[in-house]
Amino acid sequence: MTALTGTLLYRGDPERGALWAQCLQRAAPQITFRQWPQAGLPQDVCPQEVRWLAVWQPPADFAAQFPNLRLVFSLGAGVDHFDLAALPAGLPLIRMTEAGLAAAMADYVTLAVLALHRDFIRYGAQQRRAEWQEHRVVPAAGRRVGIMGLGRLGQAALERLRPFGFPLAGWSRTPRALDGIETFAGEAGRAAFLARTDILVCLLPLTPETRGLIDDRLLAGLPRGAALVNAGRGAHLDQPALLAALDAGHIRAAVLDVTEPEPLPPDHPFWRHPAVWLTPHIATQTDPEAAVRQVLEAIARHEAGLPVEGRVDPARGY
Amino acid sequence: MTALTGTLLYRGDPERGALWAQCLQRAAPQITFRQWPQAGLPQDVCPQEVRWLAVWQPPADFAAQFPNLRLVFSLGAGVDHFDLAALPAGLPLIRMTEAGLAAAMADYVTLAVLALHRDFIRYGAQQRRAEWQEHRVVPAAGRRVGIMGLGRLGQAALERLRPFGFPLAGWSRTPRALDGIETFAGEAGRAAFLARTDILVCLLPLTPETRGLIDDRLLAGLPRGAALVNAGRGAHLDQPALLAALDAGHIRAAVLDVTEPEPLPPDHPFWRHPAVWLTPHIATQTDPEAAVRQVLEAIARHEAGLPVEGRVDPARGY
Repeated sequence: MTALTGTLLYRGDPERGALWAQCLQRAAPQITFRQWPQAGLPQDVCPQEVRWLAVWQPPADFAAQFPNLRLVFSLGAGVDHFDLAALPAGLPLIRMTEAGLAAAMADYVTLAVLALHRDFIRYGAQQRRAEWQEHRVVPAAGRRVGIMGLGRLGQAALERLRPFGFPLAGWSRTPRALDGIETFAGEAGRAAFLARTDILVCLLPLTPETRGLIDDRLLAGLPRGAALVNAGRGAHLDQPALLAALDAGHIRAAVLDVTEPEPLPPDHPFWRHPAVWLTPHIATQTDPEAAVRQVLEAIARHEAGLPVEGRVDPARGY
Repeated sequence: MTALTGTLLYRGDPERGALWAQCLQRAAPQITFRQWPQAGLPQDVCPQEVRWLAVWQPPADFAAQFPNLRLVFSLGAGVDHFDLAALPAGLPLIRMTEAGLAAAMADYVTLAVLALHRDFIRYGAQQRRAEWQEHRVVPAAGRRVGIMGLGRLGQAALERLRPFGFPLAGWSRTPRALDGIETFAGEAGRAAFLARTDILVCLLPLTPETRGLIDDRLLAGLPRGAALVNAGRGAHLDQPALLAALDAGHIRAAVLDVTEPEPLPPDHPFWRHPAVWLTPHIATQTDPEAAVRQVLEAIARHEAGLPVEGRVDPARGY
């Protein structure tokens, strides 16, 4: 794919890093792969040779350490853990957009929406009380699902939900047209979107504008008995506002894959709330093989002076 | 649809019965609708006028009480709660085959399969211990799903599962060909079907042949770490065999919508087993409007001497 040599430095889960090493060895053996443990840069890594960096949590000032850095990759779909203002001008930041990431997210969202639709959180709480009590099945046509965030992940989730027959809608910062899906945009479109949404799914990127977006006011704009799925970032959600809305019965139940902070402290009320399902940020994981494919293609295109898929616009924040 | 008059007697959930009454009043006002409570036949129902009976749990000897009975309807997809040998010859028994029933089952099966695929039972147990621990996402292509029972419900579930990318297979009593799905049949095909199945879904009808089918031997034929969904009947499953397989780690987890008996007694170990999700027989419910439509069509076709959709073959048992 590219005859370029140099070192790709990886900083993330070491077990997955080993899979990256295998995939890279097969596809581009002339590139040296090295892991960068939390403990510090290994002695035998020469900073001048590091041309590409693939990181989940970047250390501060990382760019200054590697004078010949050509591209930085985020190991996830989001880049909110990067200080975009501190990125050197001319150093492109690329986020993962490989298809496996969107597929895993679409599966998670479908599972969470079906669980809320079919009262599984309530049945789970009943099971712990050994209580056999059925509840009426609402037809899918009577359960309106709305997704905030209509990028790759949001669109993949909407596609996966389509065959179930839920009335689907989407909300995004800027207007989008999607076949067969009602779309809303911006501040101006938010109230109407919320008012028609029985199950709200957040897949937004985390930016200064979306931080804390799911607050008292937003939740109050949903119909009584609505439910929430947050698979965006923990900081999208005002956690005390959700607890208050659950306890008031305005929100029926929530499935949360992300929290603030992560891991969630053991004494946080979400852990034991009967109307909350928590998963430990597993909605989606980059597939190492597909990620390496995306990285190699980005390297080749960047060297050829072509635009690179997944390149972050620091001004927009994603 | 039919100008026939007479009484349709309903014995089932009274709340749903009220919806039947409304739908029938709109569609065929010349038919008298009456509910038959558990307490006994109301004084003002004349047994000679009862032409059609729609029942969930039929009382013994019901046929003898109504000399002019023309059709009997089961309120569900199954008829295992009927004593087929005691049905008078020439009195057709019709089971529900309306599309809403299959759609609700397909949703339930998809939810259960995704929950097992994405480790939600394990994450639920972790949540109760306030434990934040992620597990690797297995790609859908690496999770083989197999459905036992390839009637309307099984086929609807396979269709719904298709977009997720699981390798799909089906097993049935007699051979069936389904587009893009590997099928197996009979005793001879069972071992090969089980050996390739990571998530096994039971949607079989309950007959003398399928009673107790999911036993030690069947579970042992699944790969280690396989998971089970039972949305057929409680009596398909040898419950102690499942508990032993769960505790031995051979079976990873189970989602059970049906048990033996129902309701499950409060001291049954399924209620508190960390690897079991129980729901109270809610995988599917007949939609009253669609059910009334099926009933009226069956009445009209039967009066016209035409074959009736959903007619049970007492020899086959479904």
